[in-house]
Amino acid sequence: MALIVMKFGGTSVGDIERIQNVAKRVKSEVDAGNQIAVVVSAMSGVTNQLVDYVTSVTPLYDTREYDVVVSSGEQVTSGLLALALQDLGIMARSWMGWQLPIQTDDAHGKARITGIDSEEILKRLNSGEVAVVPGFQGLSPNNRITTLGRGGSDTSAVALAAALNADRCDIYTDVDGVYTTDPRIVAKAKKLDRITFEEMLEMASLGAKVLQTRSVEVAMKHGVRLQVRSSFSDEPGTLVVNEDEIVEQELISGIAYSRDEAKITLVAVSDQPGVAALIFGPLAEAAVNVDMIVQNVSDDGKSTDMTFTVTMGDLDRALEIVKAHAKDFGYKEILSDADVAKISVIGVGMRSHAGVAQRMFQALADKGINIQVISTSEIKVND
Amino acid sequence: MALIVMKFGGTSVGDIERIQNVAKRVKSEVDAGNQIAVVVSAMSGVTNQLVDYVTSVTPLYDTREYDVVVSSGEQVTSGLLALALQDLGIMARSWMGWQLPIQTDDAHGKARITGIDSEEILKRLNSGEVAVVPGFQGLSPNNRITTLGRGGSDTSAVALAAALNADRCDIYTDVDGVYTTDPRIVAKAKKLDRITFEEMLEMASLGAKVLQTRSVEVAMKHGVRLQVRSSFSDEPGTLVVNEDEIVEQELISGIAYSRDEAKITLVAVSDQPGVAALIFGPLAEAAVNVDMIVQNVSDDGKSTDMTFTVTMGDLDRALEIVKAHAKDFGYKEILSDADVAKISVIGVGMRSHAGVAQRMFQALADKGINIQVISTSEIKVND
Repeated sequence: MALIVMKFGGTSVGDIERIQNVAKRVKSEVDAGNQIAVVVSAMSGVTNQLVDYVTSVTPLYDTREYDVVVSSGEQVTSGLLALALQDLGIMARSWMGWQLPIQTDDAHGKARITGIDSEEILKRLNSGEVAVVPGFQGLSPNNRITTLGRGGSDTSAVALAAALNADRCDIYTDVDGVYTTDPRIVAKAKKLDRITFEEMLEMASLGAKVLQTRSVEVAMKHGVRLQVRSSFSDEPGTLVVNEDEIVEQELISGIAYSRDEAKITLVAVSDQPGVAALIFGPLAEAAVNVDMIVQNVSDDGKSTDMTFTVTMGDLDRALEIVKAHAKDFGYKEILSDADVAKISVIGVGMRSHAGVAQRMFQALADKGINIQVISTSEIKVND
Repeated sequence: MALIVMKFGGTSVGDIERIQNVAKRVKSEVDAGNQIAVVVSAMSGVTNQLVDYVTSVTPLYDTREYDVVVSSGEQVTSGLLALALQDLGIMARSWMGWQLPIQTDDAHGKARITGIDSEEILKRLNSGEVAVVPGFQGLSPNNRITTLGRGGSDTSAVALAAALNADRCDIYTDVDGVYTTDPRIVAKAKKLDRITFEEMLEMASLGAKVLQTRSVEVAMKHGVRLQVRSSFSDEPGTLVVNEDEIVEQELISGIAYSRDEAKITLVAVSDQPGVAALIFGPLAEAAVNVDMIVQNVSDDGKSTDMTFTVTMGDLDRALEIVKAHAKDFGYKEILSDADVAKISVIGVGMRSHAGVAQRMFQALADKGINIQVISTSEIKVND
């Protein structure tokens, strides 16, 4: 007997029939003798509709009321799934975020979970009742509804698994696992049986939208055994585990890419302490998210080139801000290019193996692709 | 300065533009120096959609989960209205049923309000903040979401007005007041400036769907000054008041009708004590709502005819139940007729004036309409 948290995303609960299918999947785990807590997202499209309502009332909204509105989608799904389970003869009840409660801080719209009271729900699980919990929701210290940010239901599921000390947290989604790269682009992409938390984190933050980054962090911190699998097939998915659980480590576990990048280069910035802060401070204040930053050693000891990337949507604003603050740091020229892509090679095996970066550079050269900037983390190389 | 509870129904908050219009109406009351609590329904169509979801998951549903699902519509509207008010520069916040809380019993799906904690909300009203409260919702003694039954937002508004000791409770709807009869049928129907609680109760329970019956009962009990008015015009509506506030009492305040009636007659039922209980007991158990019951004095002292009415939807089931229990009370023949209508004349003035019923009978006779059964209450005559 195991205690399992099962999480179903928006497409998995997209209509009544799919909710009934989810109920059948839950039933088969119950029939196998497991204790089950289910975390559900809003039916697909519902959250977008609710966000549209909010932004059409007012573009500058109070995030506390935003949370009241958008959290309702998950409430509906959780009630419906509890009903579908009861219809199959399974004892089940829904638990709203404020009922458990799932305590969060008061950063409305992107709150962080600070604790989950699990006593009552564990009692019910022990009595054989399935708990259905709306993802995405929490309760602030002021007794108001919070939400965890888009994709936050993954984090709800992992945090609940940690609080319940669950044996596993299964994330059901519309893909059947984590792939080495995007299978829609590369036919040779293959599904990974296992991936480490560290690799998954790099993948998640690079736009491989399988899991919310925050959920992977929480799983890693609390040692929650995560599985990504498909709602629509019975195939095993990808297990996200600690590094020591992977016996034969692949050198490279994945290749991620992003087309939504734009590059800005400041030519001949004066090379002295504090310049980077003068450049990036105003950008941070304006909430422009700077991704890669590359600065090379100075040729003459007086000036250097500074290159950084932002999302395409932020490019114009970033240029404007840099130009407005030009007098603070000075430069000879400003160059920008929106026609770039970022490719990342990820793998904890790289730590102990040389030559990975070289093979990547060669592969790009063979295709006649010019590399603009290079940066690395311990287990990642970005071009 | 007055404390006013304003309630807006589903069509009044049917889309974002209408919600913004509601905000403007609230603002004008705030600008006039009043303290305002607003009660809102779900956007029109939303509750029906949610009920459809529930019944398509399972026809025999757990009303506790039904309440979780259907209460979400009001949550969305209250958040959106709070945002729309803030957008007009008005301080506002939403209060969920569980946040105030609005305490109810645990009769899920048709709960009764048992109390409202008004301390915190009064503090906020005094500080100039508008309170936006979703109608229809409550919290059971077990900390679960309850709903008050269809049309329950009227009752939420009146109960809140009573708890806040409000000067007035304005029910904004898609009609501009209470009419003497249905203006879509009778061109001469006229809007009433005032109506007594008692008359409103008779009107409400007769299918004049202006106010939920329960809300009128609560208003009468707590002496809440109710006004029914249009969301779409600035005309004054109809004030529902105590009898002593109406100086010149009209003899008749209204004529209500229902086409959704079917008549059943049991011919020659044995005329002895306990027979009525034997007939109507099984119907009540099966939740068949019997409206009028007429039994005449017995001709021969041995048998009598018993006539009663049910809604058309219940006719077949009622006939089946009566036939199944025939051996308990016996009858010679059973007759039924779905082609009947009920017309009611209502007015507290009737208490002290004779001849009203006679004039009604004459009017029907003039049109060649045959009267099937007649019953009366203190202030009402039904044909």
